[in-house]
Amino acid sequence: MGLTLAQKIIKSHLVSGTMAVGSEIGLKIDQTLTQDATGTMAYIEFEAMGVPRVRTERSVAYVDHNTLQTGFENADDHRFIQSAAKKHGIYYSRPGNGICHQVHLERFGIPGKTLIGSDSHTPTGGGIGMLAIGAGGLDVAVAMGGGPYYITMPKILRVVLSGSLSPWVSAKDVILEVLRRLSVKGGVGKILEYAGNGVKTLTVPERATITNMGAELGATTSVFPSDEATLDFLKAQGREQDWTELHPDPDAVYDETIEIDLSSIEPLAACPHSPDSVKPVREIGPITVDQVCIGSCTNSSLRDMMRVASILKGKTINPNVSLSIAPGSRQVYGMLAENGALADLIGAGARILECACGPCIGMGQSPKSAGISLRTFNRNFLGRSGTADAQIYLVGPETAAASALSGVLTDPRTLGEEPAINFPDCFEINDNMIIPPASEEEAKDIPILRGPNIKELPVAGPLSETIKAKTLLKVGDNITTDHIMPAGSKILPYRSNIPYLSQFCFAVCDKSFAQRCRENGSGIIVGGSNYGQGSSREHAALVPLYLGVKAVIVKSFARIHCANLVNAGILPLVFEKEKDYDTIDQMDELELNDVRGAVQDGRTITICNRTKGTFFQAKPVLSERQRRIVLAGGLLNDTREQNGRA
Amino acid sequence: MGLTLAQKIIKSHLVSGTMAVGSEIGLKIDQTLTQDATGTMAYIEFEAMGVPRVRTERSVAYVDHNTLQTGFENADDHRFIQSAAKKHGIYYSRPGNGICHQVHLERFGIPGKTLIGSDSHTPTGGGIGMLAIGAGGLDVAVAMGGGPYYITMPKILRVVLSGSLSPWVSAKDVILEVLRRLSVKGGVGKILEYAGNGVKTLTVPERATITNMGAELGATTSVFPSDEATLDFLKAQGREQDWTELHPDPDAVYDETIEIDLSSIEPLAACPHSPDSVKPVREIGPITVDQVCIGSCTNSSLRDMMRVASILKGKTINPNVSLSIAPGSRQVYGMLAENGALADLIGAGARILECACGPCIGMGQSPKSAGISLRTFNRNFLGRSGTADAQIYLVGPETAAASALSGVLTDPRTLGEEPAINFPDCFEINDNMIIPPASEEEAKDIPILRGPNIKELPVAGPLSETIKAKTLLKVGDNITTDHIMPAGSKILPYRSNIPYLSQFCFAVCDKSFAQRCRENGSGIIVGGSNYGQGSSREHAALVPLYLGVKAVIVKSFARIHCANLVNAGILPLVFEKEKDYDTIDQMDELELNDVRGAVQDGRTITICNRTKGTFFQAKPVLSERQRRIVLAGGLLNDTREQNGRA
Repeated sequence: MGLTLAQKIIKSHLVSGTMAVGSEIGLKIDQTLTQDATGTMAYIEFEAMGVPRVRTERSVAYVDHNTLQTGFENADDHRFIQSAAKKHGIYYSRPGNGICHQVHLERFGIPGKTLIGSDSHTPTGGGIGMLAIGAGGLDVAVAMGGGPYYITMPKILRVVLSGSLSPWVSAKDVILEVLRRLSVKGGVGKILEYAGNGVKTLTVPERATITNMGAELGATTSVFPSDEATLDFLKAQGREQDWTELHPDPDAVYDETIEIDLSSIEPLAACPHSPDSVKPVREIGPITVDQVCIGSCTNSSLRDMMRVASILKGKTINPNVSLSIAPGSRQVYGMLAENGALADLIGAGARILECACGPCIGMGQSPKSAGISLRTFNRNFLGRSGTADAQIYLVGPETAAASALSGVLTDPRTLGEEPAINFPDCFEINDNMIIPPASEEEAKDIPILRGPNIKELPVAGPLSETIKAKTLLKVGDNITTDHIMPAGSKILPYRSNIPYLSQFCFAVCDKSFAQRCRENGSGIIVGGSNYGQGSSREHAALVPLYLGVKAVIVKSFARIHCANLVNAGILPLVFEKEKDYDTIDQMDELELNDVRGAVQDGRTITICNRTKGTFFQAKPVLSERQRRIVLAGGLLNDTREQNGRA
Repeated sequence: MGLTLAQKIIKSHLVSGTMAVGSEIGLKIDQTLTQDATGTMAYIEFEAMGVPRVRTERSVAYVDHNTLQTGFENADDHRFIQSAAKKHGIYYSRPGNGICHQVHLERFGIPGKTLIGSDSHTPTGGGIGMLAIGAGGLDVAVAMGGGPYYITMPKILRVVLSGSLSPWVSAKDVILEVLRRLSVKGGVGKILEYAGNGVKTLTVPERATITNMGAELGATTSVFPSDEATLDFLKAQGREQDWTELHPDPDAVYDETIEIDLSSIEPLAACPHSPDSVKPVREIGPITVDQVCIGSCTNSSLRDMMRVASILKGKTINPNVSLSIAPGSRQVYGMLAENGALADLIGAGARILECACGPCIGMGQSPKSAGISLRTFNRNFLGRSGTADAQIYLVGPETAAASALSGVLTDPRTLGEEPAINFPDCFEINDNMIIPPASEEEAKDIPILRGPNIKELPVAGPLSETIKAKTLLKVGDNITTDHIMPAGSKILPYRSNIPYLSQFCFAVCDKSFAQRCRENGSGIIVGGSNYGQGSSREHAALVPLYLGVKAVIVKSFARIHCANLVNAGILPLVFEKEKDYDTIDQMDELELNDVRGAVQDGRTITICNRTKGTFFQAKPVLSERQRRIVLAGGLLNDTREQNGRA
């Protein structure tokens, strides 16, 4: 039986488990990337593991999130990451050099390699034929140390593309169409593998837009074949030696297949407040637009910027629209400055922001209150823009540019003939803002530069035999990691400071939670179903750990957050009977006995509610490897133990 | 007796008083400008005056301060200012169009005209031969309504320039030399008038750098003649019709004169934490530099940027230096994008920020903790950068660029031969981001768009006959407006919301002050000497007014803050005997009787300290006009009364 493209890459990197859907597999990781909001913690964790140099083929540390620098904390973090990178064998992409996914694609991505990154949009690398997966910072740290990365073997969903895109329609519209069909849960437990004759009509940056936003499907990752277009892209980057052709076997078997005729797609928009609330622009109609933002790891390639420049050239944006544009990388920015397109953008009235994530992560350019903002980004969750009542629509660059001119949501097909754009065969290559690591010899003398905002990593002790603690919080269904550990421009700069962050833990639900934790020393959280959905931030586990949370008992977990709890050394338990949830009140004291034995054997634990005098049962739902980690008190302790044993 | 240049402009605009040094004069104001951090309040005040259209020749509203937009407040303020400008006859320069002083110089400044602006660096306009003065927002609002602007007739200090600048030395070094000689108090009560053969060797942007930073001397303003160089500048801007030649009379009499031989000046730096702690770069030596920031209203002209680009071209900045560059205007930015210089800056590793004030006002790019930052800005006060323990050095663009390459403070003269730069005869003119006001007819139907962060302006009632209140705060000497009403990236976005700001009032000195005010309803502040020094922000008077402060009794006032108290309707009093300050404790209850009569007659008031059972005397030190304002309960009430009378 033949293999799909994703299966081939998995097979060549498999270090444990079997490739049966649903079973845990361990993968050798060739490359890692971090961004700065998750990176400081990942490098602190890497340091704590005691491995002197990374054991990957290529690890890169990017700075793209905390670039506003409204306090000393960000510059301190950048300096820390720079010093850690230099010492431990990691390439360092300086602030201003661009967004991690865009730069990685341009300068480091290699077809057929595995990449994990501490950012949920790491699947961007699938555009160049990598198996690229978003992960928690500790998982990245372990991979840098040479350890495998564990996932549940996903199903392979084949997306067969036929035809080619109509004028004014772009890759963003393709992934919006996929989201429209599959929903934000449609990719869970799956890898999307793009195939069919339509593939060859798409360039690598277009493919990367599609794989990038596969994250919004909940997919493990998305991947395109490596073909002539991939070679062209690598040639333009002076890296043709990195090319290998990669295709699925002709007799590959897919778990699912969907078909998309590219020529049938029209300009689309994801309406507030979900990336899958997708409608044709034409149908939504000419709603008034207050702001347009172009950029982000989804749509900031030279192609995207040139398309926008060609639409705006010689024109003036609507007086009631604020248009901001952030090129995705310094390569893109420099080329726009060279070829005159940047002058066109400036001339039309665009506000040019630094090459960085910026408004996509709510770092600046928050719209006016109740404002309508069109963004070429990947997420339009309520409040993410920094303005609680803003209405965010996700669109392609063509729709964004057309609407910036008219002041209302505009189908770009109304602009007339599509302007032709000439792309250079060779891109401008200047890696002077990527600092290579020191040699192993030099590295010994390099100090790690730690600012006062960088606090110690909380580390759990080995799992106790008995847990006796109060239910310090009881929450309902669908709690997100944004509830557990909020982000945004006011809090994100403090990602290296778990004690400071802890005051905001669950503040959205209950402002007194952190105080209660401090008063009680230790505690248990009780939750409903789908607990911990959303982003992959490990801070949603590390901060509760710091606050003394020993166990989380819920109806069901979101997969990544559960893994993060395990990694942090917090015991995740699932109610045997969901209705027992109703018998517990906040502040009830719970007692769990023979905890280690139960975890070791995967046994149900009988829990005594000492306040109510009742009993109920809950179960640790863990793989064998995860049981070992929980017993050790987290992945860091476990890795140390495993290294000691090796 | 002949007149100096400044005296000529004053004479032609004099509407009240006589031109005797030290007496109050009223000036007709031709032009006004506002920026957004002071502008929302100025337009709220203008609205409150009930004048439908501005009565100036040209009023312009700029947005350059609150451009990070980390919440909805900024975009709401921009929209408010845009709508108010359109309705009331004001030109609106959109966010991204540049820094008010740079854009005003390029597009609106006219030799011989008077300009007041709600920003302390308004004297930039002196570079083109304007009499340009920084003022509180309410003073600007009154001027927009056609009212005079009142100042104390200043002394005229002639600065005679001879020779010409040596290679690698620039205008910034000239004003640093003036600051070195005169100190930050050296300009108080004076206008600096530049003269001599050296003047003609300086272009308008260079002159503007010098007059801009005259603000740091405490000067009322600085002014250059209008000559051939002025004509060249206006021609390049397509505005030769705005030119008139302006020189002092040959027999003009100056109050003071200093002489500077331009050829003797070398590259200088203002050391932490004062703009007058000036030393030669050579003497300070090669200290390690963490950050370099280029831009601000002091050094962001095309000339400055081209000089920097010529130094950085084809090179790479030091790996330990973060270099940020913000062009001063969209004209400058666009021209750099057209002529390739921007590509050179990007190629060298500069982080290009939006055209705005940015790091100069602590809005972003805060250095690392205890970091050393070289900045081409105008102020290096402790903490202004957003990093409390950073060390900020003020330098010229050449020193900044040279140091960014080497990583240590570097005298640019070590770079070898100075590269020649070709400047265009004509600049690129594109005013599409400056929105003209509506016609008077259209204006009637234009709604003012007010966001939820824009709160009502506090307005005092007429001065009471009796003030009986507790001493809610007692502070020492040299209290600055930054103590009274802190700024920075966390607070500046809320400048339209006096109730919100009030929680931070005096928080630096006493976190419970605001709470005490709320509990007591009304109160009195007692202070030492030089109370209210620093910036011109009227918020340092409006916020205490909101909190119920009725009177401020001090040993001595800083001039502008005293004027702002008068404008707000708070009674400013000076101890007859300074030692009485010692007899008062915080929370002592004070009683002032026959207050209106005393103010009317300029009489000393006998104040009873009811808590101590003692008496002391204090005096309102006010001009006749100011007495009227205080009696009316502030300038707004007074203006309404005067308008009602007219």
